[in-house]
Amino acid sequence: MNIGLIGLGKMGNNMRERLRNAGIDVVGYDSNPAVSDVPDLAALAAALTAPRIVWAMVPAGKITDSVVNDLSAVLEEGDLIIDGGNSRFTEDFKHAEELAPKGISFVDAGVSGGVWGLKNGYGLMVGGKKEDIERAMPIFDALRPEGPREEGFVHVGEVGAGHYAKMVHNGIEYALMQAYAEGYELLDTKKDIIKDVTGTFKAWQRGTVVRSWLLELLVLALEEDPEFVDIEGYVEDSGEGRWTIEEAIANAVPVPTISASIFARFVSRQDDSPAMKAVAALRNQFGGHAVKKND
Amino acid sequence: MNIGLIGLGKMGNNMRERLRNAGIDVVGYDSNPAVSDVPDLAALAAALTAPRIVWAMVPAGKITDSVVNDLSAVLEEGDLIIDGGNSRFTEDFKHAEELAPKGISFVDAGVSGGVWGLKNGYGLMVGGKKEDIERAMPIFDALRPEGPREEGFVHVGEVGAGHYAKMVHNGIEYALMQAYAEGYELLDTKKDIIKDVTGTFKAWQRGTVVRSWLLELLVLALEEDPEFVDIEGYVEDSGEGRWTIEEAIANAVPVPTISASIFARFVSRQDDSPAMKAVAALRNQFGGHAVKKND
Amino acid sequence: MNIGLIGLGKMGNNMRERLRNAGIDVVGYDSNPAVSDVPDLAALAAALTAPRIVWAMVPAGKITDSVVNDLSAVLEEGDLIIDGGNSRFTEDFKHAEELAPKGISFVDAGVSGGVWGLKNGYGLMVGGKKEDIERAMPIFDALRPEGPREEGFVHVGEVGAGHYAKMVHNGIEYALMQAYAEGYELLDTKKDIIKDVTGTFKAWQRGTVVRSWLLELLVLALEEDPEFVDIEGYVEDSGEGRWTIEEAIANAVPVPTISASIFARFVSRQDDSPAMKAVAALRNQFGGHAVKKND
Amino acid sequence: MNIGLIGLGKMGNNMRERLRNAGIDVVGYDSNPAVSDVPDLAALAAALTAPRIVWAMVPAGKITDSVVNDLSAVLEEGDLIIDGGNSRFTEDFKHAEELAPKGISFVDAGVSGGVWGLKNGYGLMVGGKKEDIERAMPIFDALRPEGPREEGFVHVGEVGAGHYAKMVHNGIEYALMQAYAEGYELLDTKKDIIKDVTGTFKAWQRGTVVRSWLLELLVLALEEDPEFVDIEGYVEDSGEGRWTIEEAIANAVPVPTISASIFARFVSRQDDSPAMKAVAALRNQFGGHAVKKND
Repeated sequence: MNIGLIGLGKMGNNMRERLRNAGIDVVGYDSNPAVSDVPDLAALAAALTAPRIVWAMVPAGKITDSVVNDLSAVLEEGDLIIDGGNSRFTEDFKHAEELAPKGISFVDAGVSGGVWGLKNGYGLMVGGKKEDIERAMPIFDALRPEGPREEGFVHVGEVGAGHYAKMVHNGIEYALMQAYAEGYELLDTKKDIIKDVTGTFKAWQRGTVVRSWLLELLVLALEEDPEFVDIEGYVEDSGEGRWTIEEAIANAVPVPTISASIFARFVSRQDDSPAMKAVAALRNQFGGHAVKKND
Repeated sequence: MNIGLIGLGKMGNNMRERLRNAGIDVVGYDSNPAVSDVPDLAALAAALTAPRIVWAMVPAGKITDSVVNDLSAVLEEGDLIIDGGNSRFTEDFKHAEELAPKGISFVDAGVSGGVWGLKNGYGLMVGGKKEDIERAMPIFDALRPEGPREEGFVHVGEVGAGHYAKMVHNGIEYALMQAYAEGYELLDTKKDIIKDVTGTFKAWQRGTVVRSWLLELLVLALEEDPEFVDIEGYVEDSGEGRWTIEEAIANAVPVPTISASIFARFVSRQDDSPAMKAVAALRNQFGGHAVKKND
Repeated sequence: MNIGLIGLGKMGNNMRERLRNAGIDVVGYDSNPAVSDVPDLAALAAALTAPRIVWAMVPAGKITDSVVNDLSAVLEEGDLIIDGGNSRFTEDFKHAEELAPKGISFVDAGVSGGVWGLKNGYGLMVGGKKEDIERAMPIFDALRPEGPREEGFVHVGEVGAGHYAKMVHNGIEYALMQAYAEGYELLDTKKDIIKDVTGTFKAWQRGTVVRSWLLELLVLALEEDPEFVDIEGYVEDSGEGRWTIEEAIANAVPVPTISASIFARFVSRQDDSPAMKAVAALRNQFGGHAVKKND
Repeated sequence: MNIGLIGLGKMGNNMRERLRNAGIDVVGYDSNPAVSDVPDLAALAAALTAPRIVWAMVPAGKITDSVVNDLSAVLEEGDLIIDGGNSRFTEDFKHAEELAPKGISFVDAGVSGGVWGLKNGYGLMVGGKKEDIERAMPIFDALRPEGPREEGFVHVGEVGAGHYAKMVHNGIEYALMQAYAEGYELLDTKKDIIKDVTGTFKAWQRGTVVRSWLLELLVLALEEDPEFVDIEGYVEDSGEGRWTIEEAIANAVPVPTISASIFARFVSRQDDSPAMKAVAALRNQFGGHAVKKND
């Protein structure tokens, strides 16, 4: 079996390796010729057995748009494009619609696992037609973790469902991380009685209700730098978290912990908060409370 | 009519002036002899007509405790102590109980109005026995704003009810301030189309749903410093806000906006956030996302 | 001076009356012929002196779109359309762009004041070109509240800025309402000592930090039904609140109180919460905690 | 080795079994004679080898207080009491102080694992003196999960530290559960494209960032009742969650997700929300928006 893989960055490169380890022939393409197996998409199409499967692993938005568009020019009826990037699920509707008249199928795949995926396998959530997903199953089986298929792979539903599930996964992930982080600060602040914060997280790894993979990663991080002296409390956020809030708003779903997690990240990136300047100014006005003056 | 007033700080001093302007004789006592009308509490008691009314306007906690205790030694059966400070309402129960065996009455008074109270009058919420409150009504009438009594004064309920109401008032106040502050930041951030943030708040003063006294104060603050360049986004909080959350927790009342307002103040005072360091560390572990390194 | 006014619902009808009271000739059009002054938009255009001003006061979205489109067919170069509805500010960009080639100007006007506007005047926030706004100033002056112009009217900035400011106004409004509501519940829950909840809100109307128009309305509501026995805790929300969150997300502005207010409304409309079912199920799994069974 | 175990409810009984399986002699006492190994505490003390170890596994608060008090009458210098219940950490300070004059040692132990502990072992976090903890190590080793000791047991710090860590553990637990629950609702609400919610959670068990023990429990729950038709969204909360908020407030630690989780539980238990009645009443006042009338 062979597959085309577009995008050989950190994620794509690892996935190529995992697929090859599983005995699948991978023809990789990247705009950087140094890492690319073929010079262009036409060569990629030529190198694959029809009906072809091509996996796009490129940044969401314009780049995914142009890859899907470019592929539609070199692929044929019966071929299948899988978008494994972090596209918004609404983009999937558009892409499937664009490809349909040409008889090219489309599947969206949410992929979780980060840099650990090469070793552990990738959690996969896919959306699309049953027959398309069945055709690509050897690919999914190669990428997903060892163990029962249904514990690392799911056909979530229609086109878009895979990325929707991945978006929700990431929204949950934000709130989980924030939950542990609040707990860390509560332990860290109580230095009069708490003498072993790292040891506490370490001991939560077995038997407790809060054990999880994120907890294990937090233990690794604490063992490297128990007081996080080298790390600034500055946290980026990516599209999925924001989209989760937007979908929650659109569907009237209350998401207080997911939104709190994102707002905490927004605040973490501010040098000074315009809102809190306003609150300080207000307190000064009504109560004569001193404000901290900027120098 | 005369009254003893203990505590001649910013608030107490203004209140003395407002009471005197209303024709009430005020005997003020302060631990600072430079501003005190009498040398000690015994002299204060001696200077007042029995049955006496003494208003304590001192910091909550230990100082109020000791003032109530010291007063109980110099006052007599039939006298009345009014605690106008920011005591927690549970303290009132204790004080009323301590004074009861001596026949000294106790009334708690929540006082709102800050530095503007001298000019505008003070919003008053009081708790205690009907007869005690009626006896002190000329005092309350002198302190409260002009206009119908019920629009600036209320007998909320039993002892403790005045401070409970003031506590809730301050909890609301925190959330109101945060609401305007979030709005300020939303306007401030949209500089491509928003050209007059101060003017917008100014124009909200009449006709709109959001008009309020706090809005007027925000306009004053913005007129002084439209970009808050001189003000740091660093905001203290005082007991009442925290007690509000504790009461909410104790009574299973959801208070998402009040708690969000307090947490925003906590964050505003942190140089760096331990929690967000933990989140940054976690992201780095699972995704290889770069962290900002401290220097 | 004359003006065309499209949309004679609750708001439009009141505005027509307020404009006429100010001596402005209003030609009103509504799809309901019973209330319309003219049979169609062509007749409306014919009845106005060029260069014309037409104020659209219709539901945001498709209806505003079609009104703007229909007007562009009957208006001429030099005419001005003011959208006073609750359009999303991004719609304004589109409308201004569509009208520009025809030489028709566009101004967006955020209007606050609800059913009280006829009597009190409407708070106005407008976006657009200076000359367009100056031309329409007699209209704005007739609609806005008595008092200094800058306390009830503002030229916020470019096209879209008026509706953006109104959106933020409504976001703030949501959080203000929620703040008072949390305070109400805190007072209401403490029946052992709090004997006069309505009186407490009433007494906050003068002198306190939390005094506001919304507080006055809450007093009116409490005086009608002090325990809200006739009212269900079911609250709708409209576009502006949701858009505020979306803009906050898009601009990385933390809005914890505004989002909490919207989520509280979402929850208020749920018969049962899927999320809390999941939490109940989880507690049952790990702790053997009993769940409430549905009948 | 032998140990006294007080409290043979669901948790205590399971722990007795796990200890006995590990070859430790357990003398159990319960106020219910049907399950008790001895008739009273004196008999319990007589049955144990000095210096004795007694583990209290009874409800926090008054019952733990009286057990500690009763034990202090039957135990001797050199004996050790371990409180494994869900006591507030501040209670530990009091108990240790009460026992110190009698030469009885005190260790607090936070125990996690619920009904699964018998099989999986209990996560243990303990506070107290090094020598006391070393003495009880065979007990801890019997109770904790298989695997490296430091992954299921930790000496957190001084007396109180064990229960403080357990309190934080439970605060985190609340937020983790809420995070998954919000994700569940987001998936559940999107029925147009999401066809397999249970399968999605199931597939998250391997390879994904959100994998955890709670996720596995959610899968078990969903497999039993995929739409939670039999479960009401009504969720209790216990002391630890509330104490976490109180500690956060006391130490100025922002805990937006933990507090959101608790507030969600509060709301889940309300038939109707007083706060949302107030919001509905307010909207009606200013906008003439219809309210839902109670019948």
